[in-house]
Amino acid sequence: MIIVTGAVKSKPGALQEVLRLSLEHVRRSRLEPGCLLHSVHQDVEDANRVVFVEHWADRDALMTHFGVAESRAFAKALNALAIERPTLHTFDVIQSGP
Amino acid sequence: MIIVTGAVKSKPGALQEVLRLSLEHVRRSRLEPGCLLHSVHQDVEDANRVVFVEHWADRDALMTHFGVAESRAFAKALNALAIERPTLHTFDVIQSGP
Repeated sequence: MIIVTGAVKSKPGALQEVLRLSLEHVRRSRLEPGCLLHSVHQDVEDANRVVFVEHWADRDALMTHFGVAESRAFAKALNALAIERPTLHTFDVIQSGP
Repeated sequence: MIIVTGAVKSKPGALQEVLRLSLEHVRRSRLEPGCLLHSVHQDVEDANRVVFVEHWADRDALMTHFGVAESRAFAKALNALAIERPTLHTFDVIQSGP
């Protein structure tokens, strides 16, 4: 499985639009093949910091997700609403436990 | 590295206390050996769902963290404020990108 974490810090005044687009993205992504989890959160220490947690079955599913036109449009829109470059990290899970 | 994700759904009226205790826990945990990341968030789809994301250098550091008296007291307090049993998952990972 692949874990993806992403974070975007919203420009002042853009938070509601960031959240709206993020919810659209999350709900669309959940329907894609291999998407096991896709959620969006606000950092309790900074409500303008929006954090994504995703689980994908494998790298192929993730690469397909990144290639979806709506994913690319979302990334572009998010970038324009961010105060600094959004971050995205991917992790290969070797083992998982309770 | 180990990724830990945890989630707790707050009882009605208990959210502010959940957030207060969670921030205390996050800030204390960050000072522990091997803690690379420890953050707390609210799910955008359900503000009463509080989600932790943690990165630990290795399993030994995580086991030590779980054994700290304050961590155990925090888990117990959180449990009492939760509408359902909090979840916690651990993942051994290799960072794969970027």
